[in-house]
Amino acid sequence: MGSPVYDCLIYNGLVLTMAPGAMPLAHGYVAVAGGKIAAVGQTDTLQDLPAARERLDAQGALLLPGLVNTHCHAPMVWFRGLADDLPLQQWLTEFIFPAEGAWLDADKVYRGTLLAAAEMIRGGITTVADGYFYEAAVRQALSDAGLRAVVAQGVVDFPAPGVPDPTRNLAVAAEFLDTGADYPDRLTSAVFCHSPYTCGPETLQKAKDLTRGRGVPFFLHLAETREEAASLKRRTGRSPGAYLDHLGLLDELTVAVHAVWLSPGDQELLALRQVKVSHCPESNLKLAAGVAPIPALLKLGVTVGLGTDGAASNNNLDLWGEMSLTARLHKVWGRDPTLMPAAQVVALATREGAQVLGLGETTGTLTPGKAADLIVVDVNQPHLTPLYDPYSHLVYAARAADVRHVMVGGRWLLSDRRFTTLDWPALAASVRDQCRDLAAFCRQLRPHP
Amino acid sequence: MGSPVYDCLIYNGLVLTMAPGAMPLAHGYVAVAGGKIAAVGQTDTLQDLPAARERLDAQGALLLPGLVNTHCHAPMVWFRGLADDLPLQQWLTEFIFPAEGAWLDADKVYRGTLLAAAEMIRGGITTVADGYFYEAAVRQALSDAGLRAVVAQGVVDFPAPGVPDPTRNLAVAAEFLDTGADYPDRLTSAVFCHSPYTCGPETLQKAKDLTRGRGVPFFLHLAETREEAASLKRRTGRSPGAYLDHLGLLDELTVAVHAVWLSPGDQELLALRQVKVSHCPESNLKLAAGVAPIPALLKLGVTVGLGTDGAASNNNLDLWGEMSLTARLHKVWGRDPTLMPAAQVVALATREGAQVLGLGETTGTLTPGKAADLIVVDVNQPHLTPLYDPYSHLVYAARAADVRHVMVGGRWLLSDRRFTTLDWPALAASVRDQCRDLAAFCRQLRPHP
Repeated sequence: MGSPVYDCLIYNGLVLTMAPGAMPLAHGYVAVAGGKIAAVGQTDTLQDLPAARERLDAQGALLLPGLVNTHCHAPMVWFRGLADDLPLQQWLTEFIFPAEGAWLDADKVYRGTLLAAAEMIRGGITTVADGYFYEAAVRQALSDAGLRAVVAQGVVDFPAPGVPDPTRNLAVAAEFLDTGADYPDRLTSAVFCHSPYTCGPETLQKAKDLTRGRGVPFFLHLAETREEAASLKRRTGRSPGAYLDHLGLLDELTVAVHAVWLSPGDQELLALRQVKVSHCPESNLKLAAGVAPIPALLKLGVTVGLGTDGAASNNNLDLWGEMSLTARLHKVWGRDPTLMPAAQVVALATREGAQVLGLGETTGTLTPGKAADLIVVDVNQPHLTPLYDPYSHLVYAARAADVRHVMVGGRWLLSDRRFTTLDWPALAASVRDQCRDLAAFCRQLRPHP
Repeated sequence: MGSPVYDCLIYNGLVLTMAPGAMPLAHGYVAVAGGKIAAVGQTDTLQDLPAARERLDAQGALLLPGLVNTHCHAPMVWFRGLADDLPLQQWLTEFIFPAEGAWLDADKVYRGTLLAAAEMIRGGITTVADGYFYEAAVRQALSDAGLRAVVAQGVVDFPAPGVPDPTRNLAVAAEFLDTGADYPDRLTSAVFCHSPYTCGPETLQKAKDLTRGRGVPFFLHLAETREEAASLKRRTGRSPGAYLDHLGLLDELTVAVHAVWLSPGDQELLALRQVKVSHCPESNLKLAAGVAPIPALLKLGVTVGLGTDGAASNNNLDLWGEMSLTARLHKVWGRDPTLMPAAQVVALATREGAQVLGLGETTGTLTPGKAADLIVVDVNQPHLTPLYDPYSHLVYAARAADVRHVMVGGRWLLSDRRFTTLDWPALAASVRDQCRDLAAFCRQLRPHP
């Protein structure tokens, strides 16, 4: 009996499996079969490598799990750079809401999501959690792009893109969940209630019930701004965490996005209920929302992942920037340079992010049996030379453009920086063509500066 | 009389001259002659373009002044990622000082600087201010790489690399200044006193005198950490700004680097004396030093530029990260999302940075008569599509890898991402070879984790 022949073998890399406690494997390899990781090992003699139909010499590059983006509004790439450096409410009510209401449609959501997918794939993201409207179009686009995704239909108690009648918001979400069965396993359909200030208590509870019955995540923006937390307190007498707990919304499948203005009691409540947290520091800073108490949440045992948020408030879908900022920001905020060391931050962007999305058994580490979701990061570059500590480089020096190859479920989505599932020139041309309409529309809203 | 024939014409770009009040020029061009900018204009008909010996079609890319890095310790790329996530004093005394003292020599400084130059050129930096030891080797390397630079010999009152006898620190600096005349105009030789806590008052004053006589900048780290400011107060009874003013060190050619822990009185003093400030936010966060009061300093009229600091404390020499962080950090710190808008941040990284270094007449804007220091940034990419506001993209979405071409003084240093002055494969091989010694040396200092 000969050794097994794998579908694909990536070898001669520095393998970071991101499994807890695992050491980097020099001269490491990952073997892929049937879309899954079949073996991980190391050898510096080529003849000892297992047989495979396709072989890729990683040439000393870093080989690690694909990054997990735990919060995104993919179609909002249309609004990237349309209006910046404004107060949150002015930005939302004068630009984003009008543009969403009058200009977006399902086709534009589909194409915007392909554009977002192109950016995420080229930045090494293999799994994304998205929450928006026309989410069926998002699901189709992410499926076509080949990404792993948790797609969550947006719910608010006022007219929204694709849901002009808010009394139908839950019916639309239920239908979205029901049609999820038509998609491959790598797409999980879920629900995203925008926030406690845009959804009433009954909406929140019914939306949570929709997900509870199906065992899928329930996302919501929580305590993003100080004003939001203060207003909730005035309205309900409760802090953000206590309010959601009172409504019975806190459990291990609830993902609290932002989680900035949490009292110590709220933090303990999230830990107790095993609520997951998505940390989006670039967006939080740009909107002047605040700094989430991530070191404290981690100390309490809360599972935390990183998110880019949408390109309208970031303005990129680049988890490398989020890693760098996460590692730096909490050091200065907590006045302690030992907070959020590099290896921990890489774990948040991979293994922990997968757990936030309920995909801890599927992806997030290079472990045999999990999906073959992986990236190859080229370190043969001035800004990554010399190399002493791969985790340090990933967090403090590497950038999205250093990702050379991206695989999801055993399929290459990016090969030597070229897309395999997307036609970038055609997509770019159609996006540029349509964004002229949007620019014209927005000039009506406010005289262009 | 025909129209003049230029040396080089870069056309079909979106030109941001960064001159105060100038609007972006669509279908813009820049003409170069004799190493200087000869003309800037716009036309969308090819036949109206001026004649030139070399023509580059920018294909809709952004064309702007090269970035100005106002603070760097280039040779410290050797120490990138060698020790992270540690308290500042432990990092300095247990790793950096021993490695600098026992391992560095002039040749390693030269090669480290070439490596740093490679990273900076590929990230669109055309001017850098460096401060280190063996600075003559830094000067030679930056000259060979083709960058514009202010190179400043380091001065401290204890044994330093290349200056084992600290009583010779000023003599070494004076000799360094004197030999600067042998170099092209694009190299300015200056002095970098490390800080008020490593240099006594007499050293500071004599070093400042060396620069004053020659009309060149005087750099020093000022008020980087809270402990430093508190200790100075205990020792001298004065705040950092007041102490330097008392010594007569504050004038328009002094560059205060970091400038984090400044009292309101210190801030006013810096403004009154026209002291320049170099802001290095990525380093300040990583070392948990603090957040410099940049919006307040700008309001007082202080000229501020951006700096990367060295790769041992950052860990990159990438001004794109500094721009993104500068725009975001002060919004959340000052609880105001309108602080540090994108266009202002691009100005800090170009025009204002040049003024910080006393090079405002030479570089920093695309103005006829100034040196042809410019970069071409490729926006035909997913993360920069669509494009409404070029300043927003440069600050919030673009990255170093988006820089396609770099010119300094009319000479291409990077052409379609390829180096013209550096042999990257040979440099990479020699750096990797020598960094093994350093890694072995550092393992003696502390058991490897």
